[in-house]
Formats: sequence, structure tokens, C-alpha cells
Amino acid sequence: MKAVATSLTAIAAALISAGAIAAPNDPATLARIRDSAMQDNYAFERLADLTDLVGPRLSGSPGAAAAVEQVAEAMRKLGAKVTLQPVKVPHWVRGEEKGELVDYSGRPAGLSQRVVLTALGGSGATPAAGLTAPVLVVKDFADLKAHAAEVKGRIVLFNVPFDQEMADRGLAGPAYGHGAAYRFAGPKIAAEMGAAAVLVRSVGGADYRVQHTGASGLVDGARIPAAAVTAEDAMLMARLSARGPLKMHLTLTPQILPDADSFNVIADLPGTDKPDEVVIVSGHLDSWDLATGANDDGTGVAGAMGVLETLKKLNLQPRRTIRMIAWMNEENGTRGGKAYHAAYKDKAEKHIAGIESDSGGGRPFGLITSVSPQTVGLLKPVQDALEPIGANVIMRRDSAAGADLTLMEKEGVPMFEPLVDGHSYFHYHHTPADTLDKVNPYELQRHVAVLTSLSWYLANLDQPLGRVTVHGGDDD
Amino acid sequence: MKAVATSLTAIAAALISAGAIAAPNDPATLARIRDSAMQDNYAFERLADLTDLVGPRLSGSPGAAAAVEQVAEAMRKLGAKVTLQPVKVPHWVRGEEKGELVDYSGRPAGLSQRVVLTALGGSGATPAAGLTAPVLVVKDFADLKAHAAEVKGRIVLFNVPFDQEMADRGLAGPAYGHGAAYRFAGPKIAAEMGAAAVLVRSVGGADYRVQHTGASGLVDGARIPAAAVTAEDAMLMARLSARGPLKMHLTLTPQILPDADSFNVIADLPGTDKPDEVVIVSGHLDSWDLATGANDDGTGVAGAMGVLETLKKLNLQPRRTIRMIAWMNEENGTRGGKAYHAAYKDKAEKHIAGIESDSGGGRPFGLITSVSPQTVGLLKPVQDALEPIGANVIMRRDSAAGADLTLMEKEGVPMFEPLVDGHSYFHYHHTPADTLDKVNPYELQRHVAVLTSLSWYLANLDQPLGRVTVHGGDDD
Repeated sequence: MKAVATSLTAIAAALISAGAIAAPNDPATLARIRDSAMQDNYAFERLADLTDLVGPRLSGSPGAAAAVEQVAEAMRKLGAKVTLQPVKVPHWVRGEEKGELVDYSGRPAGLSQRVVLTALGGSGATPAAGLTAPVLVVKDFADLKAHAAEVKGRIVLFNVPFDQEMADRGLAGPAYGHGAAYRFAGPKIAAEMGAAAVLVRSVGGADYRVQHTGASGLVDGARIPAAAVTAEDAMLMARLSARGPLKMHLTLTPQILPDADSFNVIADLPGTDKPDEVVIVSGHLDSWDLATGANDDGTGVAGAMGVLETLKKLNLQPRRTIRMIAWMNEENGTRGGKAYHAAYKDKAEKHIAGIESDSGGGRPFGLITSVSPQTVGLLKPVQDALEPIGANVIMRRDSAAGADLTLMEKEGVPMFEPLVDGHSYFHYHHTPADTLDKVNPYELQRHVAVLTSLSWYLANLDQPLGRVTVHGGDDD
Repeated sequence: MKAVATSLTAIAAALISAGAIAAPNDPATLARIRDSAMQDNYAFERLADLTDLVGPRLSGSPGAAAAVEQVAEAMRKLGAKVTLQPVKVPHWVRGEEKGELVDYSGRPAGLSQRVVLTALGGSGATPAAGLTAPVLVVKDFADLKAHAAEVKGRIVLFNVPFDQEMADRGLAGPAYGHGAAYRFAGPKIAAEMGAAAVLVRSVGGADYRVQHTGASGLVDGARIPAAAVTAEDAMLMARLSARGPLKMHLTLTPQILPDADSFNVIADLPGTDKPDEVVIVSGHLDSWDLATGANDDGTGVAGAMGVLETLKKLNLQPRRTIRMIAWMNEENGTRGGKAYHAAYKDKAEKHIAGIESDSGGGRPFGLITSVSPQTVGLLKPVQDALEPIGANVIMRRDSAAGADLTLMEKEGVPMFEPLVDGHSYFHYHHTPADTLDKVNPYELQRHVAVLTSLSWYLANLDQPLGRVTVHGGDDD
């Protein structure tokens, strides 16, 4: 077939004329991939296995180990080439957690008020019987600085509200980043100023007295006790503190155990003519421990697994290798991403593209990519294939790497992630409510359609996309 | 002034001509009441004191005792005539509560799944170390009956979803009633069939893994362990049960202590010329123990307190006595309502009307009343006064008594309650999330405007409203 001169037809025809005989990179094949994914429950079934049978999967836990086995076994069953890449992971284990406001102005004799809270990952421990200290409520870092003289020996509460209105308007990421900064950096700063413990207001828009855990940023040095209180409890503490001195009894008994052995699960669908060139499609397998991590990031892993299953079912063999990775330890160390980078940085130029899906299973509207503005146009066939399912928006950003691919992005690998409706993502993310029922099976099918179309297209391009220079960082 | 022949003017003029010189029952006075209430933070401040300083107020608890003192003291401070009416109340104390799915088809060795649950009021206890039993998931009473042979020795789960769509469409009460029937009646029925324990799916529309407690209906006979699991956990158990046999380890260690001494708080604003005739305006002071009972029923109590404060501030003395009652033990025994009835049933004809506000602090649209269709028209001046604040809808029902006034309604006393937007009420009701931040201070002002206008108008009517015959029951 001869290429004609108009855009899409030209590109498609050019690709078709270029090679891949058994399974060309043409609109018809992309449409078959999309339509097959949209009728396939495989990914949702894998997500149900992961969340219902295994459950929480914090790094170092028995759940994480079982998840590695389950995903590897499912990929073997598909006929993929499975490798378990060793990763040493932090091993932090939640203990008892209890908060009680034991004195405040206007308190009836004998009463106290319970505070709903949960330890942050990496938190230090209080004595087993807890500690009692006055509370200092601050609204931001400047406020903390203004009260520097009062920090020593106190329990510092960063009472920073999550801006759900921003999240509702499509700015969930920045809204999260604003609050999460206090969770990442606040504990260390308060510890260095002599605080007895540190509390952050849960980073999320839910108003159901839901506690949101997450990494505390405490990795070495003074590990003071650090917890997230619910939005409701933060507001209560602020109100009581406005009435007069407030005293709290806090018990947190997490343990930091020696680093544990774990794995990235790598499952290859080998390329036909360029097997050493790789397109990564991935999600992270570990989750926080309060829930079953359905949206964070069960949907990412199940979606990536669905890519291999869709291609296998259609008997489509890519020219380059499509590599499914279920990363270990995204949540509290990104050791999986670091191990991969250490092993593969010398082969960075063989990595054609990296995809990580880690924004939950909300409706995908299209793609985010870090390829150059000049290169974005090359993605037109993928856009066109995804147009009938309303997932054809392409957004370019200087960085588009999930946390596990940050180092590979710095090596120049072009990155992709789904562009997802995230307005309610932070209602559930890192809370006990991140459970299977929050995932719409139809939207997960749409994710698989997006991920598979993109992976297939990239793996079959005549020429790689070109290298990318990263200017900014990824602060998700 | 002489009465003229047209509706509102006629009624108002007739009332004015009839007596009450210092403070007539006229449109101008009702407007002053409404406007004053709409600019007054008294009720919200009392609600903040009750929820922030006292907190949870389950019958028999130190919180309930402190609440009695706090409300009585506030009413004395206003100059009301305060009586503490003794009430013996059930004394049930929550203990440890833990659920774990310890075996199921497809379970990786060594893993189990945590279940978020909370004991129902009146629940019996498991052994201290818990009990382990197979789970039987049923979808309704008919399904239980169909599996009658399997009940003995099992943990029965009533997996009955709350219909939030009904609640969103103005039918929150019936939606709640449908689910709550399993909480009220299910434990006893399952106990009589030999169940080892009983679980209900939380009755409420929130999807944040929130547990809803409430009365179990277990008051005598076999007190088996009874708990509410969250909607998410009920769905998980149903899915795992569909895969094969499911086994659970359940620990609930509540205690049933001897009945405790408590009180209804009664605060009278005595009538000028008919002090022995009474209009009750009330809410219930006790709450469940998981939260601070802001909407259930702090807003009812604070609203009723606001009635007395509004009239005091305007220096308005009613012709008949307006009686604020903060009921004790609405949630698990209605002993307060029973004690009042026992003491006052012989004076039922002196009770001109009863008002109980127990539908939360959502926007009030007007009133529900049990007065006869012929009498509803008499309320026109109240409707007109509430029209500028959008609270002038009057809905007639055969029964309009809150739980604490049911017995007085059966004596023929006409009943009233606010007509309230309840679409999100059951998201929070009986959960840990029923906290002060859920109450909009402006809506609470509107409640006080409604309650005060109504109380004042009824207390100053020339003729009582007439008796009411109750045909139906109140199943709220």
C-alpha cells in the first residue's frame, strides 16, 4: 500500500508500509486492541484477587510477599517471561495508636476527648504507656516559626486544610501537594525544633473522620512519633486550643524492623525483531496498610497486567518487548524504582518509553507525556484510536514519570501516564476506604484500552521517540 | 382593634384583640422573633460547648452526666425555671471490638483480612479472646429463613444496602427504616435461630468505611454479640463468601452494667396567664458514643435552648408555659420519654403541643404536624412569618412525635417537628463523623427561628389546637 498525503492516513499508511507484517501498527489493529480491552474483565478480576484475597500490601509485610507471588503466577499463566527482581525494602510495622485530649479549658471533671488518628509511615514510637504533652496548633510553617520558642516538648499539630474545591476543579494533584508538604517535611522540621511529637491534618477531602496515612519523611535522625489526625479532630483541637491550653495523651507504638527482602515483578512480552528494546507499562504493587489499596495502586498494576492479557488474547506480538512491572515500595522508599535504575541505567537508551499508572482508577481522559512538543504529533494514531472511548486528550508536561520511573526519566527515557479524573481520589487514597468497591469496572476497562493501545503503538514504532531532557522534578 | 374579614389579617387581628398586651401573638412579634433568631449565635455556642467540651453522651456515661449539668446550668443562667427529672437509664459500655476474616477460598497462607466494625448498643460479648465461626451472608429475612438450617453456630451477616438514591430524593427516613429494621430485629431473630453472633451492614449512605452503631434490639433474653460492619466490609464478606466457605474471628467485649441514675433537663419559661398549660420544645441530650452527637441530637437540644434565649432576649413572656426539655436516653431505651409520660400523663390535656427536633441540623423547610387537616389553617401566621427564610412548608402526618414524645402523642397531644433536609443525615448519624463541623451555623439559626416562632405562637393561641387521635405509629 502506498502512503497518501493527508495526516492520519499518511501516518498510518507509512507505519503499515514500514514493516510489521503479522500485526501492523495500523488503525485497524489499534481499534481491535481498544475494543477487546473494553469487553474484558481480566484486569478487574486480577484487582479483585489482589485486594480481596491478599489485601493490604505494605513493604515488608506478608501481604506484599503474597502479592508478589500472586501477580507473578498470573503473568506466568499468561505465558509471559517473568523475573523477580530483588529489592531490599524498609520494614515499618504499625502498632497501637491512640489519642486523647486530657485537659482543656472548660473540660468537665473526669472527661477527655478521643482523637481519631493513625501513625505515619516511618513514625517513631512513644513509650508503651504513651506520652502526655501540651499541644501547639499551627496553621503553616511560618506560624511554626513564629512560635519557635514554644515547640520544645510539645505536640505540634499542622492544621492545614485540604482544598477540596481545588480538587473538584481538576487540581487534585496541587491540592494534595500543598497539604502533603506538611506530612513529608513537617515531622523532620518539628523534630529538629524539639517537638515531643508531631501531628498533621489528614491530607484529603473526605469529611467522614477518616485518617490518611502516608510517608512521614522521617528516614534517619530523630524519629519522633508522627501521626495524621482526621480533619474533624484537627478542627476540634484548634477550637479547644483557642479556648486555652490543651493537653494530649498520645500513644503510638510502631516498630522499625531490619530491611526486608522483596521484589519487583517483571513480566515480559518479548519483541519479535527488537527484543532488547523495551516499553515499560507499570503500576506499584505495595500499598499502605489501612486498606486494600484498590485505587493506590491496585488499578495501576491490574491495568498493566491487562495490557499483556489483551495482546496475548489477540495473539499480537510486538516488535519491541513490552515489559509489565509491578513495582515494590513506591509508598515509603521507592526502592523498587531505584533497584531497577541501578540494574538498567546502562541500557537506558534501549528503553523506548516508560508508562506508570498511579492516579487511581477514575475515568481516563487520555495521556500525559514528556515527549517533546515536536514529537507529540507522532501519537496521533493512538489519539484517534482512543477517540471513540473519550480518552484522546494528550497533555504534555516536562516530567511525566510516576515515582518509580523518576530515575529512568532522568536518563532520558520518554514517559507517559494516564490522564485521570482525580477529583475524589484523595477522599480515599491512603485511608481505610481505598477498597475494591471504589473502582468502576468499566473505567478500568478504559484504562486497559488506553495502556494497551499506547504500549502497542510505541513498541511497534519504526523509530524510537527520541530522548527527553528533564528540567523539573516530579513532586507527586 | 377590630377584626376584619380577610384571612391572615383576620387571624392576626383576632389574636391581637384577644389579650396578650405586653407581647401580642401578631405578625410583628413573630417577625421580631424570626429576625432575632436569624442573627443569634447562642444555639451554635451551646452546641459547641456540648460537643467540644463534653463530647459523646451515651446514657449512663460520665459524658451524659456532664451534659445534664452543662445544659441545666446554661438554662439557669438564662433565668429559666430548671427541674432535673430523675430517669433510670440502661448502662451499656463498649469494649474491645475486632473482626478478622481468618479463612476463605484463595487465601494466601498466613494472611487474614481485617473487618472494620463496631458493636451495636445492647450487644452481648464474645469470650475475651473472641470466637471463631463460619459466616452466613444473607440478603434479607426471607434469605435467612431459606438458610435456617445453616444458622446454628454461625455468624450471620445481614448484607442489606442503604439506598442513598432514596435518601437523595427526599426519602431518607424510609431508606433508613428499611435498613434499620435489620438492626432492630435481626439480632433477636438470629439469636433465636441459634446464631453465634450477628452482623448488620451499616445503615447509612457514606462510602468511607464508616461504621454506624445503634440499638441492637437486644434487651432481654439471649444477648448474642451484635455489631455493624461497614458497607465496604459487608461487600467484601459477600464477595469472599461467594468464592467459598468464609470463617471469621470476632471479638466484642461490651458490658451491661446496672441501670444508672440520670435526668431529663426541664427548663420552663412560665406562662403569664395560663402557666399550667404547656408547650414542649425539645431535643434529646444523650448520643451514641462514637462521636460527639452534633446532628443527633445536639442541634435539637441547642435549638430548643435557643427558643428560650430568643424570647428572653426580646423580653417576651408567653401566655402559656414554654418548656424546653433535653431528653435523656432516646437512643437506647427512651426512658426519659417514658418517665415524663408517667409523671405527666394525667396532665396530658394541659399539654397544648409537643415539639421534638431530632432530624439533624440540615436546612429546615418548615414543619411537620399531626394536627387535624381542619386545624392546619390555624398555623398560617407561623407560615407567613417563616416565609422570608424559606421555612414555610407545612406537612401534615398522622403522627409527628419524636421518639421521646410518642407516649404523649398517644394521650392526644398535638405534635410538631421541623421538616428538614435529611439527604446526608444518615451519612453521619450514629457514626464517628457526627461532629460539630457538620453543622452549618446559619441553618441552626434557621432552626431556632422555626422553633421559636412556632413555640411562641402556640403558647399564645386563644384556644388550644384540639386533641389528636393517633392511628399510625412512629417508626423513626
